[in-house]
Amino acid sequence: MKPEQTKKVTLAQIAELTGGRLESSPDLEISGIAPIEKAKPGQITFLSGAKNYRQHLENLSKSEASAVIASEDAPEIKLPAIRLKNPYFGLVKALELFSPDNRPNYNIHPTAFVSEHAQIGEGVTIEAGAVIETDAVVGSGSWIGAQALVGRESRVGENTRIYPGVKLLDRCQVGNRCIIHANAVIGSDGFGFTNHEGRQLKVPQVGNVIIHDDVEIGACVTIDRATMESTIIGNGTKIDNMVHIAHNVIIGNNCTIVAQVGISGSTIIEDNVTLAGQVGTVGHVRIGKGTVVAARGVVTSDVEPGSFVSGFPIKPHQEERKILAALRKLPELLKKVRELEKNSPTKDE
Amino acid sequence: MKPEQTKKVTLAQIAELTGGRLESSPDLEISGIAPIEKAKPGQITFLSGAKNYRQHLENLSKSEASAVIASEDAPEIKLPAIRLKNPYFGLVKALELFSPDNRPNYNIHPTAFVSEHAQIGEGVTIEAGAVIETDAVVGSGSWIGAQALVGRESRVGENTRIYPGVKLLDRCQVGNRCIIHANAVIGSDGFGFTNHEGRQLKVPQVGNVIIHDDVEIGACVTIDRATMESTIIGNGTKIDNMVHIAHNVIIGNNCTIVAQVGISGSTIIEDNVTLAGQVGTVGHVRIGKGTVVAARGVVTSDVEPGSFVSGFPIKPHQEERKILAALRKLPELLKKVRELEKNSPTKDE
Amino acid sequence: MKPEQTKKVTLAQIAELTGGRLESSPDLEISGIAPIEKAKPGQITFLSGAKNYRQHLENLSKSEASAVIASEDAPEIKLPAIRLKNPYFGLVKALELFSPDNRPNYNIHPTAFVSEHAQIGEGVTIEAGAVIETDAVVGSGSWIGAQALVGRESRVGENTRIYPGVKLLDRCQVGNRCIIHANAVIGSDGFGFTNHEGRQLKVPQVGNVIIHDDVEIGACVTIDRATMESTIIGNGTKIDNMVHIAHNVIIGNNCTIVAQVGISGSTIIEDNVTLAGQVGTVGHVRIGKGTVVAARGVVTSDVEPGSFVSGFPIKPHQEERKILAALRKLPELLKKVRELEKNSPTKDE
Repeated sequence: MKPEQTKKVTLAQIAELTGGRLESSPDLEISGIAPIEKAKPGQITFLSGAKNYRQHLENLSKSEASAVIASEDAPEIKLPAIRLKNPYFGLVKALELFSPDNRPNYNIHPTAFVSEHAQIGEGVTIEAGAVIETDAVVGSGSWIGAQALVGRESRVGENTRIYPGVKLLDRCQVGNRCIIHANAVIGSDGFGFTNHEGRQLKVPQVGNVIIHDDVEIGACVTIDRATMESTIIGNGTKIDNMVHIAHNVIIGNNCTIVAQVGISGSTIIEDNVTLAGQVGTVGHVRIGKGTVVAARGVVTSDVEPGSFVSGFPIKPHQEERKILAALRKLPELLKKVRELEKNSPTKDE
Repeated sequence: MKPEQTKKVTLAQIAELTGGRLESSPDLEISGIAPIEKAKPGQITFLSGAKNYRQHLENLSKSEASAVIASEDAPEIKLPAIRLKNPYFGLVKALELFSPDNRPNYNIHPTAFVSEHAQIGEGVTIEAGAVIETDAVVGSGSWIGAQALVGRESRVGENTRIYPGVKLLDRCQVGNRCIIHANAVIGSDGFGFTNHEGRQLKVPQVGNVIIHDDVEIGACVTIDRATMESTIIGNGTKIDNMVHIAHNVIIGNNCTIVAQVGISGSTIIEDNVTLAGQVGTVGHVRIGKGTVVAARGVVTSDVEPGSFVSGFPIKPHQEERKILAALRKLPELLKKVRELEKNSPTKDE
Repeated sequence: MKPEQTKKVTLAQIAELTGGRLESSPDLEISGIAPIEKAKPGQITFLSGAKNYRQHLENLSKSEASAVIASEDAPEIKLPAIRLKNPYFGLVKALELFSPDNRPNYNIHPTAFVSEHAQIGEGVTIEAGAVIETDAVVGSGSWIGAQALVGRESRVGENTRIYPGVKLLDRCQVGNRCIIHANAVIGSDGFGFTNHEGRQLKVPQVGNVIIHDDVEIGACVTIDRATMESTIIGNGTKIDNMVHIAHNVIIGNNCTIVAQVGISGSTIIEDNVTLAGQVGTVGHVRIGKGTVVAARGVVTSDVEPGSFVSGFPIKPHQEERKILAALRKLPELLKKVRELEKNSPTKDE
């Protein structure tokens, strides 16, 4: 094991880094970051504005942490505090500061295979067992994980991280500053068949996948290539683990697709859409800009921009909530109506 | 980058290949295929019979395409047209014609490991980092992708394509002309435990998986081996991405299993069954020949042949549709019944 | 192909191994185990107490098997029988006896890469194309499959099996006697972002994953590392294929998580909980000890210990069943209420 490399920075330095307002103790030395309950002396912690806020505050009063990152709005705190309007931004910066840096210091590991017909930029890292195929391009600063594949004529932009085991298949493209997590598959064939003489005949899938910049794609995600042309993921979109994206789908910028979502073929998702966990869509629908589909919803038709929908089929979220509440009264309702029928004038006739 | 290899064929040649009826311009040279909106001069396009047909027709009138593949039933088209009863068959043939051929021209890549106890047929391609284990068999013409595994005593038939990262585990079998997409797992252990003295004791899974001919299996699919004997996938069955198939499942011929379906242990699925996206089944049920289970349905009991079912638990699709429609009136119904109760004679007594 | 290695053991030896009571024929030689319908002379079979018990009994009377493992409670059987209180325990022992042993007889395959800074215990097997990174530890007797990765500073305990293609990412830990199935990902980044100036800013995920002893994890499972600290899987917990476990989740001991379940961030699952297939949880909930969530349920709030719940949102299972039954009467109910309204005194006024 490597000796533990303890980094020490002053609270003033962290405040400057985060753009936060430091209340006291600028020279206090901080050696790490940890949650409220786990923090030890010398570490900084974080007071989130999330649920259980009261509980967090109480835990903070008992924490061993030496300092805290908190919201401008948070009440008085006994510990030295760095205050920010968005304390999560402070958390991000502090986490970056104390992140372990495991990037290897070689360029191409001797067990990796890099085709002589591939173009590899400056400062690229290619780990053990990775394969970079003929006519592939890997841009400067990118980092290809162990046993990952960059297929024939594929392109990886600059400063992108491809984690171990990812399969970026032939002729697909990934932009700059992207992160693709382990064992994701980019460019598998779309699921297209035509019934011919009683058998299912494969429709060749000759398109590709284009992933734009600043996209993050989760572990074991699958994104199918288009039949013709391209399946597209827009700038800044974040996709969680085990999401399935079918052929010819077009996803806009800055969308959030949570785990285990399934998006059927030719769906168009406009910018800033959120699909919560386990959502499904039927094919050929358009989901308007800024829409939120709540967890487990099934999108069966086009959705207007700015909608907040849920259920199967999707409805306005408030309507779905009322239905779910009413459902719990349904068995009772059946009894009541049976009772009413007994006493109904029609029955008396 | 390789120089773009532009293939040029005449419209008459395409018509012959597809078995279609050419209306005009037999000597027109075609260099590629693209969707209606994207096609450029020199390319052929495709008029599908799918939804938005009117829109497609209108777009076609503005397309830059030089020719079109269309249905016999489609109205008059200004472009030179190849007409077929099933235009999708024409699309398939044209896509095959213009498909990029990325198959490498070596047999076994120097970084692949092939056991000296494996049998490799004629004309097999084994890409970089692939592993072919002891006593494995790979049939003639098959193509094993980068970093894929063919396990000990496994068999791959002829002209089958195993994509990068697939794990075909020990003693499993894949037939002829199959396609297995990236990072799929064939032959993982079934999920079987018995409670013994308060602990979960693993039931060894000593069976295997047998995949018959002309089967296609999606990316990140998992098919568990049987406890004893075999989990079986029948001829011509097509399985989309991220489908989970548990131990001892038997799937018949020419089934269609859409993405993210989960099939529990010992389920029997007869021929020509369609399970739409995100369907689930409980274990030990039999789904009769030709049945369709609509998206998200949960099969909780045996299903008669030829059924069209949906919902949780599954019901005849028309019944489920009526229930879903009625649900939207449920909150209103609660109010009405409350009103009726107020005015009911029983309340007056 | 290797010559078939037929192992022969006497019925008395099997009885001793399983702790069962042998009724007759102690010297009968048994060469294998197979299901009732498939067993051949010389093989032992198994009479489960599962559903279709009558059918199994009838099939047994026609089976070619030479002996049977059965429950103490089963009726008289003509075949020589080994009887146990828990016949599944007998099945486990008999399956173990006849399991094919495919463990290779080398230690480190020449195509594997093992860092000189890794610690490898006694009797470890590392298959072709596997990568063991800097400062990783693999405990005695463990078996690392082809093309698997043990990341930097990761630890694998003793007698653990890591199947092909698994990615155990940097700084994660797996205990003793665990089994991790093919292409699972342990330690992918959690899905955490904060909105900063209109863009989604990644919250670095600097924690890890800790998997305790005797855990089994299915194929293509993804377990995200904690933001800080650890995502934890307790002793003896069994996880089926394609389960997604988000960051900061804590799962207790001896839980059973069935295929395609999705567990959102910071969920706490106490000991002996069962989540059936395709269940989902929202984040930050606690599921009490011994709870069972039925298939497809969505856990939207804390659950008391010992609950049996189902539905979306989850409710007591009996209540959910009543609702599902009542739903089938809902369209009829709408008509009845319309009828009642027509005849209601208020309408007459």
